[in-house]
Amino acid sequence: MISSFLARVSEDISHVLEEILTPPAGLTPPEQRLFSAMDYAVQAGGKRVRPALVLAAYEACGGTDRALALRLGAAVEMVHTYTLIQDDLPCMDDDNLRRGKPTTHVAFDEATAILASDGLQVEAFKIVACELPVPSDTRLALLDVFLEASSARGVLGGQMIDILYEKEEYVANEAELKHLQNLKTGALLQASCVMGGLLAGASEAELSALKAYGSALGLIFQITDDMLDVTADSQTLGKTAGKDAAQGKATFVTCLGMEASTAYVARLLAEGETSLSVFEDKGSLLFQILAFVAQRTF
Amino acid sequence: MISSFLARVSEDISHVLEEILTPPAGLTPPEQRLFSAMDYAVQAGGKRVRPALVLAAYEACGGTDRALALRLGAAVEMVHTYTLIQDDLPCMDDDNLRRGKPTTHVAFDEATAILASDGLQVEAFKIVACELPVPSDTRLALLDVFLEASSARGVLGGQMIDILYEKEEYVANEAELKHLQNLKTGALLQASCVMGGLLAGASEAELSALKAYGSALGLIFQITDDMLDVTADSQTLGKTAGKDAAQGKATFVTCLGMEASTAYVARLLAEGETSLSVFEDKGSLLFQILAFVAQRTF
Repeated sequence: MISSFLARVSEDISHVLEEILTPPAGLTPPEQRLFSAMDYAVQAGGKRVRPALVLAAYEACGGTDRALALRLGAAVEMVHTYTLIQDDLPCMDDDNLRRGKPTTHVAFDEATAILASDGLQVEAFKIVACELPVPSDTRLALLDVFLEASSARGVLGGQMIDILYEKEEYVANEAELKHLQNLKTGALLQASCVMGGLLAGASEAELSALKAYGSALGLIFQITDDMLDVTADSQTLGKTAGKDAAQGKATFVTCLGMEASTAYVARLLAEGETSLSVFEDKGSLLFQILAFVAQRTF
Repeated sequence: MISSFLARVSEDISHVLEEILTPPAGLTPPEQRLFSAMDYAVQAGGKRVRPALVLAAYEACGGTDRALALRLGAAVEMVHTYTLIQDDLPCMDDDNLRRGKPTTHVAFDEATAILASDGLQVEAFKIVACELPVPSDTRLALLDVFLEASSARGVLGGQMIDILYEKEEYVANEAELKHLQNLKTGALLQASCVMGGLLAGASEAELSALKAYGSALGLIFQITDDMLDVTADSQTLGKTAGKDAAQGKATFVTCLGMEASTAYVARLLAEGETSLSVFEDKGSLLFQILAFVAQRTF
């Protein structure tokens, strides 16, 4: 059931992104190339977890305009995609493949990839600032959360920490690892939940619940990622398994061990569930997403 | 007189940028590094033409809160700076020096430079979306212009054209060169003028005048830049003179010749002056900036 929800979101988001990134008429070939690179990057697939969270949070708070929530979800996915383009660059993780396809700088070139990452970022903010048919104050409230999560105090700070820790073979402790992950992956996952709520006109209590839920989800997401790197094979993962260990990278598994990591996930799952009580039955979809992410390890 | 106006704006903008980019307390060393790189890039100097245009357009439309206009000017300068960081990257123009100082990726490293460019971009949009003490609809109108100029339909498209033309030793004709420059440098210069007007609550007639003025100014800026590359020495320029010719790059000078370029600047100057008539005496500062830019060749 949750997998069919995720599959449907994924299909819908691909269509919305395709429509958003349709190039305007009369472009020169270089401008056409830039739009092609933006489209290539967003259509590379992925689980579309962030749009699913936007939609689930929106519906939990009583929102009923699915197309509206998908449009906001597409904007979040565009920011997520731009961080992946950059993460794969030679000066960062230097990956040639992502989900079995050449990364954007390989399919095009580095300059085009960087400009496409900028383009996706601006376009995402423009959707929220100028295109969502909601009151001005709602758009500004959404931008506040979106821009903060995307800033040097959010994903960019997390990426900077991650890169320097890897370079310096720095072994982080649990608190440092949590801080890194809260920024690098947690900030945008949490923002997806909060923005879905804001779009539906959520109450303060609902927004607090979404923040707590998003925080638990972000950590579960990262811990299970670290566990899968140890337990799964490359084919199941869709990326090279055992990469963290091979790079001597600090992970939740190296910090806590497998058993404590499993227990931590179970604890976070319970915390996430508790935070959803304010939504009563309407929180069921959010809980199922949480359980789905947690179950990757069970 | 105009030079003292520009000098004062430049000094004020440096202070505002310093304040904006003061890192929050309690950062880890990698996060601190990211903020340092953002600060390094914006403090590298430059003429601060865009903030000056924001301020002059704001005052021409009756605005009186100088600190407010400077804050918006700082946001525009941050977007301009992020495009310079990227322009200097090895995969783009590969420059080690800008205004006599090591470029950001040389002073730090490529990954830090790219993340700093992202950080400046997000922070600039955040100032407009969340910090300017003006009505919500004014902030959204400002964002509309700002994001559009910064998008793949603006500066990014211009940069993409520029890079591909250089790589392929493509000789552009006058119309193509104008299109390239309208996007690469014109879009943000024009947006600076329009945004200054919007901040002051300009009328439709005033906004149209600022658009026409900004368009003339953007072209004058580029034509004089191309002329100076031929006529000035490296010391006067603060960068390598004769670089365009050495690279076989199409410029307004190679397209039109020096004489026709000079005549074109004079014509644009007259057009710019005409567009300012709606402001009567209050347009004097804008005209002086235009004349200052044009006079670089006389």
